[in-house]
Formats: sequence, C-alpha cells, structure tokens
Amino acid sequence: MNDLYLLNSVWIVLGAILVIFMQGGFILLEAGSTRMKNAGHIAGKVIFTFSMASIVFWAVGYGFIFGEQANLFVGLSDFFYSGYEIEGSNYATTAFFLFQLAFAGISLTIAFGGFAERAKLSVYIIFSILFSVAIYPVIAHWIWGGGWLAEHGKQDFAGSTVVHLTGAMAALAATLLLKPRIGKYNRDGSSNNLAGHNQVYTALGVLILWIGWFGFNAGSTLGVDDGFFGYVALNTNLAAAAGAISALFISWIVLGKADVPTMLNGALAGLVAITASCAFVETWASVVIGLIAGILVFYSVRFFDRLKIDDPIYALSVHGAAGIWGTLSTGFFATPELATVGQAGIFYGGGFTQLGVQALGIITSGLYAFAVVFVLLLVMKFAMGGLRVTEDEEIAGLDISEHGSYGYPEVFVSKDSETA
Amino acid sequence: MNDLYLLNSVWIVLGAILVIFMQGGFILLEAGSTRMKNAGHIAGKVIFTFSMASIVFWAVGYGFIFGEQANLFVGLSDFFYSGYEIEGSNYATTAFFLFQLAFAGISLTIAFGGFAERAKLSVYIIFSILFSVAIYPVIAHWIWGGGWLAEHGKQDFAGSTVVHLTGAMAALAATLLLKPRIGKYNRDGSSNNLAGHNQVYTALGVLILWIGWFGFNAGSTLGVDDGFFGYVALNTNLAAAAGAISALFISWIVLGKADVPTMLNGALAGLVAITASCAFVETWASVVIGLIAGILVFYSVRFFDRLKIDDPIYALSVHGAAGIWGTLSTGFFATPELATVGQAGIFYGGGFTQLGVQALGIITSGLYAFAVVFVLLLVMKFAMGGLRVTEDEEIAGLDISEHGSYGYPEVFVSKDSETA
Amino acid sequence: MNDLYLLNSVWIVLGAILVIFMQGGFILLEAGSTRMKNAGHIAGKVIFTFSMASIVFWAVGYGFIFGEQANLFVGLSDFFYSGYEIEGSNYATTAFFLFQLAFAGISLTIAFGGFAERAKLSVYIIFSILFSVAIYPVIAHWIWGGGWLAEHGKQDFAGSTVVHLTGAMAALAATLLLKPRIGKYNRDGSSNNLAGHNQVYTALGVLILWIGWFGFNAGSTLGVDDGFFGYVALNTNLAAAAGAISALFISWIVLGKADVPTMLNGALAGLVAITASCAFVETWASVVIGLIAGILVFYSVRFFDRLKIDDPIYALSVHGAAGIWGTLSTGFFATPELATVGQAGIFYGGGFTQLGVQALGIITSGLYAFAVVFVLLLVMKFAMGGLRVTEDEEIAGLDISEHGSYGYPEVFVSKDSETA
Repeated sequence: MNDLYLLNSVWIVLGAILVIFMQGGFILLEAGSTRMKNAGHIAGKVIFTFSMASIVFWAVGYGFIFGEQANLFVGLSDFFYSGYEIEGSNYATTAFFLFQLAFAGISLTIAFGGFAERAKLSVYIIFSILFSVAIYPVIAHWIWGGGWLAEHGKQDFAGSTVVHLTGAMAALAATLLLKPRIGKYNRDGSSNNLAGHNQVYTALGVLILWIGWFGFNAGSTLGVDDGFFGYVALNTNLAAAAGAISALFISWIVLGKADVPTMLNGALAGLVAITASCAFVETWASVVIGLIAGILVFYSVRFFDRLKIDDPIYALSVHGAAGIWGTLSTGFFATPELATVGQAGIFYGGGFTQLGVQALGIITSGLYAFAVVFVLLLVMKFAMGGLRVTEDEEIAGLDISEHGSYGYPEVFVSKDSETA
Repeated sequence: MNDLYLLNSVWIVLGAILVIFMQGGFILLEAGSTRMKNAGHIAGKVIFTFSMASIVFWAVGYGFIFGEQANLFVGLSDFFYSGYEIEGSNYATTAFFLFQLAFAGISLTIAFGGFAERAKLSVYIIFSILFSVAIYPVIAHWIWGGGWLAEHGKQDFAGSTVVHLTGAMAALAATLLLKPRIGKYNRDGSSNNLAGHNQVYTALGVLILWIGWFGFNAGSTLGVDDGFFGYVALNTNLAAAAGAISALFISWIVLGKADVPTMLNGALAGLVAITASCAFVETWASVVIGLIAGILVFYSVRFFDRLKIDDPIYALSVHGAAGIWGTLSTGFFATPELATVGQAGIFYGGGFTQLGVQALGIITSGLYAFAVVFVLLLVMKFAMGGLRVTEDEEIAGLDISEHGSYGYPEVFVSKDSETA
Repeated sequence: MNDLYLLNSVWIVLGAILVIFMQGGFILLEAGSTRMKNAGHIAGKVIFTFSMASIVFWAVGYGFIFGEQANLFVGLSDFFYSGYEIEGSNYATTAFFLFQLAFAGISLTIAFGGFAERAKLSVYIIFSILFSVAIYPVIAHWIWGGGWLAEHGKQDFAGSTVVHLTGAMAALAATLLLKPRIGKYNRDGSSNNLAGHNQVYTALGVLILWIGWFGFNAGSTLGVDDGFFGYVALNTNLAAAAGAISALFISWIVLGKADVPTMLNGALAGLVAITASCAFVETWASVVIGLIAGILVFYSVRFFDRLKIDDPIYALSVHGAAGIWGTLSTGFFATPELATVGQAGIFYGGGFTQLGVQALGIITSGLYAFAVVFVLLLVMKFAMGGLRVTEDEEIAGLDISEHGSYGYPEVFVSKDSETA
C-alpha cells in the first residue's frame, strides 16, 4: 500500500470525524434555538437519531447509494456492509464509508427542524428510519452514486443539494403538516418570537458546525493529491465569515438592532451556500457567495414567517434557501481552471447549460424529498393518531411529556415548587 | 525518516488530541449528571486531575508501564521522560508518549464517579496522585507493557480492561467507602433520583466522548500501515449507535418512558464494550456487541441501585459492566482473519482458551484496582479525618464549601436573596 | 507533488482547524467569566469578530505580514489573496494562509478582554477592523514576516509575543480608556468580585483552548519532517498541567480556598508561557515554565486588581504577564541542541544576548500595540460620543441594550415577570 493511499485515508477519516462532530454543533444549535422545556428532548434526539442513521446507513443506505448492482434510481447491493477486505484504489473504502455515513446523519438532523417542539417522539423516530431508508439514499444515488442526475452532469461538490436541500425539503413537508407551535402566530396574523433559550449554546453550536464544515467540504476532495484541500477549507472559511458579517449588518439596518441569531444564521448560510462550489470558485467569489447568503437568510426567515410557516431552527432558510443559492451560484461563479484542478478529471463547464442542470437537480431532488416525506407523514398521521403531542403535553414541554424527566430538572422543580 | 513513520506519528498525535478532548466530554457528562451546586467543582476537577495525571505520568507513570528495565509487575526506568532524541521504529516515541498520557488521564477521570458530590477535594487530589502512581501504571504494565498478563496472551486492544475496568473498580471501592449521597436512599429502602441538572451538557458530553473514541480506538492501531484504522473507527461508530438504540427501547419498554440518560448511557456502554474488540470483529458483531451493551447498562444501573451502591455518573455500569462485557465479547466474536489483519502479527486465537485468559485478566486487574484503592482510601479515611465533607457542606454543595465560590453564582445568589 | 509536501499540508490544515476551534473555547471562557446579562453579546461577538478578522486578513492582513514586496515595517503585496496556483515548497500555501488567518483571529479575540461588559458594540466592531488592519499584521510582519525584529534574531516560535502580548496590550489600552465596570470598585478602594456566571463553561472553554493549543504550538512546526511536532505537543501539555497545579495550590495557600477560576487561569498561563519556547526546551523546563506561570498569573491578577485596572477575562494576566514570562523563559531555558532540531536551520543562541533581543521584541511590540490602540480609541471616543454604553444600558446588560434580545430570554423574562 503506498503512502498517498494511506494519507488520503487519514484525511477522509479526519473529515468523517469532523462531520460527526457537527452533530455536537446541532445539539447546541437546536437546543439553544428552542425553549428550556424541550432542551433534553432535542439534545437527546440528536444522539439517538444519529445512531439510527448510522445503523440504517450500514444496513441499507450505503447499498442504495453506492451498491455496485444499481439502476439509475437506486443501488442494490453492499447491504450490511463489512468491508475490511474491500479496498478502494485511492483510499480505504472503510474511510469513505464512514465519511458517507456521517453525511447521511447530517441530512437527517437538518430535517428535524420541521418537527421541533411539537412532534411526537415516536413519529420522529419512525420518520428518521424512513428518511434514512427511502429519501436520503435515493437522492444521494442520483447525484453521487452514478444515478440519472450524475449522468446529466449535475455538480454537487459536498452536498448543497444532497444533504442540505434534501433535509430542508423534508423539514418543509413536516412543518406544513404539523402546523405551527402553540403561541407562534396570533389570531390577528402577527407572529411571536418564541426565542431560543440560550445564545451561548447557539453561538458555540455555530462555531462547532463551522469547524466541522472543514471536514464536510475539504474532506469531500476525498484525497490530498494536489494539495487542493487547503484551498477548499479557505473558501469555506471566507464564505462563513462573509455570511455572518452581511447578516449582522442587514439586521442592524432593517431592524435597528444587531441581531445575534440572524448573524449566526448568516454564518451558517454562508457555509451551506459555499458547500456546492467551494472547489470551483476563486476566493473573491466565496466572499460574494457568503455575503449574499447572509442577506438572503435574513429575508428568507421573514418570508417564511409571513407565510406562517413555523421554522423553529431556521432549517428552511439556512439549509433550504441558502442551499439553493449555493447550488445555483456554482453556475454563476465557477472558474474553469479551478474546476479542473479541484476535481481531478471531472469537467465543469459553467455557464447557462450547467445552470440548467443545477436547477434540474434542485427541482427534482427537492420535489422528491418533499413529496415522499409529505405522503409518508400523511400516512403516519392517520396510522398513529396524529403527528403532534397533545396541547397539554406541548405546553408542559416534550422533556417531561415524552421522556418523563426535565432536561433542566432543578430549574423546573424550583419553578413548580414556587408555584405550589 | 520515511513518510510512513511520519504519517503514523501524525495519526497517533491526532489520536492523543482526540483522547484528551474526551476530558471535555467528561466535564459535560459529569457536571450534567450531577446537581448545580457541585457543577463548578466537578468541571474544575476534570482540568485539575488531568493536569495531575499528566505530570505524574511524565514523572513516573510512563516508566512504570513501559520502562525498559522491568519485571513482570512493573517497569523501572524512563522516569521524568525527555525523549526528543529517542525515536521509535514505526512512529515518534513522543507521539506514543502523549497518546499513553491521554489514556492514563481517562482512567483517572472515570474513577471520579465513585467520589462525586461528597468527597473532600483534598481526598480526591491525593487519590488522583496515588491512582496515577500505583494503580493505573501497574495494570497497564501487566497488559500493555510486557507484564505477566501480556505473557499469558491477554488481549485488550484499546483498553476495555486497562482504562475502563480499572477506573470503574477504583470508583466502586470509593463509593462503597464513601457511602451514598445524602438523600439518595430512603429509610424504607427506596431510592430517589437525584437527577443531573443539565441534559444538554450530558448529550453534548456523550457526543464529544464518541468523537474522542475514534482517537481512543482507531488511534490504538498505532499506525496506518494497512489502512485498517478506518475499519476500527467504523466498528466504534456502529457499536455506539447500537447501544444508544437498544438502551432507549429497553427503557421505553420497561419504564414506559424513553429515558434520555439511559439512552446516553447506552451509547457510552457501546463505546466501552467495543473498545476491546474493535479491531477483531466484523461489523455485524459490533452492532450486536453494542445492542447487548445498551441493554446491559440499563439493567446494571438498576442492579447497583437495588444494592444501594450510589453511582452518580454511572461509572460502575458504563465503564465496569460494559467494560467486562466488551472484554469477554472479544472471546465470542473475534474473527481470526481480522485479528491477523488488524494486529499486524499479534495472533488472536479466539475460542474458550482465549476467553479464559480474558477472564483471568478481568479478575486479576479488577481485584488489584479494587483492593489497593480500598486499602489506600481506608488509610486516608483515618489519616485525614474522614473522606467526606460534612453534612452541611454536602447540602450547601461542594462549589461553595470546597472552593469558596459557586459554579453558577447568579443562580444561587438570586435564590439566596429570594429566601432572605 | 511528493508525499511529504502533502503530509505537511495536512498537518498545517489540521493545525488551522484546531486554532479556529479555540474560538469555541473563547466563547465559553469569555461568556462564562462574565455575567448572564452579557452572555449572548459575548458569545455572538466571538463569531462575528472572527468573521471580521478572516475577511480583513484575506483582504489586507496577509499581504501586510507576508507580502513579497515589503519593507522592514510592513509587507505590501498579496492582498485579496487567491492562491490556488501559488504553491510553497514544503507545504501548500493555502494551508499556511488558513493557519495564519486563524492566528490573527486569536489575537483579536484576546484583545476583547479590555472591552468586556461595557463597550459599545459599534466601538468594538470598528476596533476589530482597525486592529486587524493596523496592529496585528504590523507586529506579525516585524517578527514572522521578515521585518526588523526578525532581522535582529527575535524568536517567537508560536506567537507568545505576536499573538498573546499584542492582544493583551490592546486590551490594556482599552480597559484604561473604558474605565472599570459599574460596581467593580467601591469608593473605599476595595474591589468586588463580579463573578463569571458559569464555571462549567469556563472549564470546558479551557479544555477546548488546551486542545486547540496543540494546533497552535505543534502546528507551528509547519511540517512533520523530523517527527518533532509530537515533542512540541508534549511540552505544551506539560506546561498547561503544571500551570493548573501551581495556580490551584497558590490560591489554596494564600486564600484558604482552592479557587477554580485561578486554577483555570493557571492552565491558560502555562499554555501562553510555553508558546514561545515549546520547541526549544526540555520537558523538565516545560514543567518549570508552567509552574511559574501558574503562580505568576495568580499574583498578576491581584496586582491589576490593586491598581484598579478592571480585567474581566484576565487577558492582561493570562496573555500579557504569562506571555512576557514565556518569551523571556526562552532565553533562560532553551537547549541549543533542541533549538537546532526543532527549527530546521533557525539557529537559537540562548543566553543573555538572546535574552536582550527577546526583551527588545517584547518592549517594542508591546509599546506599538498599546500606543496605537490607545490613540485610535481616543479618536473614536471623541468621534463616536464615547466608548461605553450608558449606565442604564450597562446595568440592563449588553444583550438587551445592544442586540435587542437576551442571551437567556427565559431567565430574564421570568425574573422580570416576578418583579412585575
């Protein structure tokens, strides 16, 4: 085995570790963006659903995406993977497997945004299995596993469409069916800010996601051969930074206050947007993509709020709107030389034709994720006597109602005893 | 120096960094699993005792384990290590040193579980020195340093016995001598749930430990030569995931509630269990080992509770019971081909003979750790006027009584002023 | 491209990731060391100012430091860096760029210590741009970019002077101009402890910083050629550990209580101190440097408090006093053989001549940072109608007054509603 093979494998495993670490970022981001009474539920479900995603990916997900016996729709071999003998040519297949497993976990975690603070635990668990079996692997096969979108030349370097848009469209279907949280919208049509309970969590969560994104994007080079991964990491950093800056200033200008959650969303939007194009664009373009993503996410949040679509963790705006922007931006900003350098043989044409293919990928992937999740949840709604906890349970919080204990027991016990 | 040597060294240093990061996981896990009044004490002691473990390991621990002048019981050279000139043949010795130092720190942190929320700070500090001098290095020498258990063929790939069982048995001795926390058990024999104060901390702590375990297990290959480390990381991930899933469902079935702390313990139990065998078993076996570990930890926690052995941070169940299961499971599930691939020359026989050696290792190591810690603490009990803080101090919390300031001063000040 | 080039690049990118992760440590350290009413502001500003530092570094900072067209004072090319074609000889230039960007971000974050809990957001944002344009790059050029101090032989392996002292001197200028926080000092000259609100945050923050410092110091080898980076990491760990231990015991002896914040400062002081010399000294010297740093930081905190210089996050003591000690200690403890091994051709003389050059570097760099920041802030004070928020805003907290929402909304809302 040569040294480059081993170095590539180390790089990919490091990437996988960083992407799995993003689950820690989501624990903080999601728990911090919601209320204290649901904090244990949300933090715990991240661990649990990443676990579920891992086992399902091992059992069937990897096979559906990358199975050698495949059609254009889905792969059909390599289930219950046990690959210690199988070796890829440029890196260890096990390293690649773990890296892909981590991606599947992220997409599921994003989808949770549509369920937050009101879905039954049992509903979300069954959804997490269905999503990991029938949604994510199908789209991943289409684009990364040699499926029909790959055949049409669809580019998605590190998963703007595959991971982020898929998760966001599932979240959209869920939040439409679940309806807004109690207290979110008033009868007169105005909306209340059900503020997240801990901005230190959310800020630290964003920083951890930022760190993890170096694995997400720079790890997606799947090799160190040309020393290009450092450039991808740099582009990633610049877009995140630009997104934070533009989001803070747009909120300051429009609202008169430098809003912290908006700024944090801006950083994430920059990260999501650059995910598609980090290997194809120059640094100045990364800055521009990030700046636009930061402004876009601010208006997108307001847009969904005006439509009365409740999006507690901003999944629709951060992963959806910024994901679409990122995928399209590849068409606008890609530099042909870079595309060649960065992709070792994958030609990237740029221009309007490419833009059309990108759009086709967004529309078909997004529609598939949305429609299938919508139907599955509709079936579950009837089969399981509704998707939501009862009104009393929602008001009491999912920690106590779904798990039998508070995430912050001393806070709630002391409140209770004060009331009594 | 050839490239493979350097790449191995990078991999080992990365492993060391990940294992040291596990101390951050323990800060969150231990502080989150206990009450607010002890949070600063517990978080601070992690930093302090890792510091102590580091200095003692440098001064004498490394020499006791790996010193070239050695007998079957303990090594006797290489104290006050300053090894910039000494180079190993496959990797830099300094990298290996730091990796081993990190392991010593983890074992000590596990042992704290038996002292939590009631031991005097001075007692725990002296214990931390004694443990780092006389407990951990001895067992590590027996199994990893060429001592008598190594000579009998005892396998412990990444420390199920050396790190986890040793820590857990020390915790058992401590908790038996210290007696349960005030309020834990009622006169009628029933037990109260002194719930941990922050499940976001514990969930994030588990995620950080999970991440760190990639260094713990996959780093224990001590080299990247065969590209096998990715496989070890994959097995680690699968066992953790399986443990979380089985633990959640067993609690749901038995208690009627999907208990978050149980699920988190399940993930950790899966990680502890796979630590012994991650390089020797196929992926399906990792899943089975994890599933069983998750169920085991649920019943183990109930078992210790019924015995009125107070185990605030579940060290006995997570690191003890799951550690024993993991060590034995190597005997059940090891695949000979893998053992050869994974261990580069270390033959692993499997079967009943090996099972016997594994059991011998567990029993002798466990007994040594338990008995010596028990005696040392008994001596300290008399020499230091007891191991516990006073009843008033325990009720007030160790933050204020042992350190003179609250970990959450605004919470306690406002509570106090409300009372006044 | 050869394998060593690629391995060096991976190591440097890993170092950059670890250093950027330190911003997460600062989120926790800075928010935890201050009060609840400012927590969202402080956590958010870390993300925002790292973003600002990133963009400014990309636009002009890198060029000022390392631009090929340079004089002794500052570099003058390579602005708006887009370096995918430019390749260094030992590692990818993009990797080096990201690593240096991360350092610039750390120095700015340290400087915040002088503004904490009372500076206007607008003031700090403008300062963050000015610092990133005119302070940090100039000193970095002097010492690392071939400027006049480099020509005089000034050593600063990983930035004791460039990063830590520069940040601390900026913080000193700021805190002198801003004056102490309301309630910090009484009319009779005594001082109040405005205790940080969360020691779990601060302890975890220190652990994350500790982890990140492996990238900071061991990454500063900028290559793995001689396998020396493991040794640097080991020295880093030993100094941090020694600092925590000596700080805890000095506080215990002097105050009668084992003070947690002091111990945490001790670990950081050990890290800051070893930053200058980690590649030049033997392990025993690292322990001694750390032990002294831990004691020094305890007395330094008391010293600044007695001078009524308010230093909420201990920047002056941890990064200033310990930074000076670290830079000087290189002169005392450097081992000539190590200096040669560790620096691949950079001769390190040691002894009094070197000590003189080290002192010259400290004095000139410190003076430049202090004086220029002082003047800039003085100008801003007049131009912007003062540097501080109003008394009412400070009492209400910067979360609500500068950002329009609380970092912990449920805590403050419930308090408010109780009052009402």
